[in-house]
Amino acid sequence: MQVYQKALDYARSHYDQFTQALISFTSIQSVSTDPERKRQVIDAARWLATKLELLECSNVQIIPTNMHPVVYGEKMIDSKLPTVLVYGHYDVQPEDPVSLWNTDSPFKPVLSGDMLIARGVTDMKGQVMAGLAAIESIMAVDQTLPVNVKFIYEGEEEIGSPSIHDFLMCHRELLRADIVLNLDAGMLAPDIPTITYALRGLSYYELTIFGPKTDLHSGIFGGIIDNPAMVLCKLLSAMKDENSRICLPDFYNDVVELTESDRIHLRAMPQTDDVLLEQTGVPKLKGETGYSRVEQNTARPTLDIHGLLSGFTGKGAKTVIPSWAMAKFSMRTVPNQTPAIIDDQLRSFIAEHAPDTVTWELKTYKGGYPAYCDPSHPATQAMSAALAEAWGTDPVFKREGASIPIVTEMQNILGMDSVLSGFALPTDNMHAPNETLNLEVWKKGIAAVIAFFYIYGKSAVEKKSI
Amino acid sequence: MQVYQKALDYARSHYDQFTQALISFTSIQSVSTDPERKRQVIDAARWLATKLELLECSNVQIIPTNMHPVVYGEKMIDSKLPTVLVYGHYDVQPEDPVSLWNTDSPFKPVLSGDMLIARGVTDMKGQVMAGLAAIESIMAVDQTLPVNVKFIYEGEEEIGSPSIHDFLMCHRELLRADIVLNLDAGMLAPDIPTITYALRGLSYYELTIFGPKTDLHSGIFGGIIDNPAMVLCKLLSAMKDENSRICLPDFYNDVVELTESDRIHLRAMPQTDDVLLEQTGVPKLKGETGYSRVEQNTARPTLDIHGLLSGFTGKGAKTVIPSWAMAKFSMRTVPNQTPAIIDDQLRSFIAEHAPDTVTWELKTYKGGYPAYCDPSHPATQAMSAALAEAWGTDPVFKREGASIPIVTEMQNILGMDSVLSGFALPTDNMHAPNETLNLEVWKKGIAAVIAFFYIYGKSAVEKKSI
Repeated sequence: MQVYQKALDYARSHYDQFTQALISFTSIQSVSTDPERKRQVIDAARWLATKLELLECSNVQIIPTNMHPVVYGEKMIDSKLPTVLVYGHYDVQPEDPVSLWNTDSPFKPVLSGDMLIARGVTDMKGQVMAGLAAIESIMAVDQTLPVNVKFIYEGEEEIGSPSIHDFLMCHRELLRADIVLNLDAGMLAPDIPTITYALRGLSYYELTIFGPKTDLHSGIFGGIIDNPAMVLCKLLSAMKDENSRICLPDFYNDVVELTESDRIHLRAMPQTDDVLLEQTGVPKLKGETGYSRVEQNTARPTLDIHGLLSGFTGKGAKTVIPSWAMAKFSMRTVPNQTPAIIDDQLRSFIAEHAPDTVTWELKTYKGGYPAYCDPSHPATQAMSAALAEAWGTDPVFKREGASIPIVTEMQNILGMDSVLSGFALPTDNMHAPNETLNLEVWKKGIAAVIAFFYIYGKSAVEKKSI
Repeated sequence: MQVYQKALDYARSHYDQFTQALISFTSIQSVSTDPERKRQVIDAARWLATKLELLECSNVQIIPTNMHPVVYGEKMIDSKLPTVLVYGHYDVQPEDPVSLWNTDSPFKPVLSGDMLIARGVTDMKGQVMAGLAAIESIMAVDQTLPVNVKFIYEGEEEIGSPSIHDFLMCHRELLRADIVLNLDAGMLAPDIPTITYALRGLSYYELTIFGPKTDLHSGIFGGIIDNPAMVLCKLLSAMKDENSRICLPDFYNDVVELTESDRIHLRAMPQTDDVLLEQTGVPKLKGETGYSRVEQNTARPTLDIHGLLSGFTGKGAKTVIPSWAMAKFSMRTVPNQTPAIIDDQLRSFIAEHAPDTVTWELKTYKGGYPAYCDPSHPATQAMSAALAEAWGTDPVFKREGASIPIVTEMQNILGMDSVLSGFALPTDNMHAPNETLNLEVWKKGIAAVIAFFYIYGKSAVEKKSI
């Protein structure tokens, strides 16, 4: 394992270069949901393709989809070695509200102590860069790799990966591998390396209630027509009860109740109310009755409103009955729930509860299935050992509350499980103003990925030779 | 009454000039709620002061207040004549959403057939102009007036007249008169001249719910914290029940139930569901159980949401738990309810119903008292005769759902009732895009105001000589 140590040394002496590369990567405004920034999204894809070329990958391609392209490349060393499909996404969340950022611009990365501040720096350009830095370090000292590697980077993860299903269907052969390495799953705390074995799914909606044909004077018409904003409030209110249970018909039918072993796993998690209160700044936590915090935000479904807009929202007072009212909201779902069934349940609910004094329109955004990945897979075990080596402590196995739709797609279409880890922290302000990456943690992460490739390569060779 | 006929002739031959003056007046962006347009508000005040100078008023002044100034002027003819205090406001509602206007700009008035389209053209610059045109017509042919006239024009009506209370308190002597003429009350239809004898009050609020200290990822934190947008929806929903009754504690205690004579008055009103459906474009009307439409929107209290804002409202999907959620809403109140008591009831309600998982802030905007003016007052009777003369049909006596706080202030502080009429139509898009003034109706209105001054002057002289 002398080359392994040399690779670690190389990484250690090149962190500044890796950081500079990440600064260049996060300067690109690859906001996938914004039609005005399609060109910048492609710029990010080109940036990655160039990186893969520099790593002397073969077959580097920027493959078009209906929206944003997929970047592909590969380093096939030896057909006897296992193949790791390194997955990542190069798109980022919108940066608004910009006024709440403490830096000049979400796309002018700022280095502040051990923190790098920029939109997408931790979700997940920093994670993508960790994988690339690991490969560069190994290649630099070893001129080969302990595994075969394929790279696939999509540009639509933050909008629910609308093209990835068809893409995977069309490129099954190209993408064939033994395991997916997905570093989009984060970790619990700087000193707690983490492997995620289950993810929640996402069903995302936009509901608009239409009332009068134009905004009306509330003095003249107030009292004789229904208010679309009030109708919207009543509908949303009725979707969730006082115990934080979701009130759609039959919503819990497909939810697999937690097993005792699951609950033991989750009880071992270091999450405490004090830390959560500190992280969120809320005066008091609230979750589904009968479940622990960790269960509530990783293993139980929930519903959240993401946005409300109606009528007059400027300075001062304006006395109108608004013509329409809009809400964006989503359900986080858990293993065995399916988006199509959730859709039906929601539409039935609205059809039943919306009064005939208004009309309504429900838009379904692309969401994703929940996922479950077997913790005993050899690659997952290799990652466990690699994290233990980099951090000096065994990783925690957790379920994740967020959605990574690609994980289920990889399972369903390519038949591959994913190793889910990563180095993003709960305090990194993902999806929010002042997104940060903790560079000290990130450096350990690069070391862990280097270790993962060596340990998994070795374990697979040993297994084959038995 | 030969001069009366001559004054009518003068008006008829000068409608084009009056219209041009109104176009110039409505080109001024006197949006009182917008701090950025303070200068334009003053421009409108100056425009009026110049008009009063041209009418050879005495004592013309632009009197500063804490916010927007009051314009004053007077024509004192003879101490034996009754004095009419002509009230108006020169400020207008905000113009947004600008995209829904069919004209180039809300402040570039467009003449389209009999319609003049511009922000403020009917509410109430056109009404102000009707009064000025009537005075001009009488002066032009008679060189005197049948009554004394004082003019008071405020610039804060659309924001709840925050300065008028103190202004009236400070200028009681200056403003002393026998009756207020207020043309801000509108009419039911082009062929139904209307006198309003009661108005609803307004209690206007902005409620903000604060949750996490920053927007949070709904996958990671969804399930363990309350969602401020959901809390807001639940609070607003709980304020109004399925029968459109307001659920604040003791809210109906001060509401004077309608008398049988009131209900007979209101039953005579020509409002029908078909017309209301056509006007509003809603699929079905909705109002408080047990009351007729006319009662619901003029004589019963109601609550409307005017605006909602929270989280991500742009294009696409963003999965955040918003840090805060805001609603603007108001109650329309009826005679005997008082703003201070409504405030207390609302604060008690929110304090009782808001969960301890969030914090909240309630901002009270300046609203106004409801009002009742005696229909048998001689000036009201004079206006009734004047309208009958101009339209060839007796006016309807109605209650008004909208608020004109100045009416109660005039009663409380100056001890004067108001004659409430006007020539704005329900179809004029007040407070909404494409605000219009029907010029044919407006011309009849100018004739009616001319008649009012002569009839009221004559009746008062006759009364005194008895």
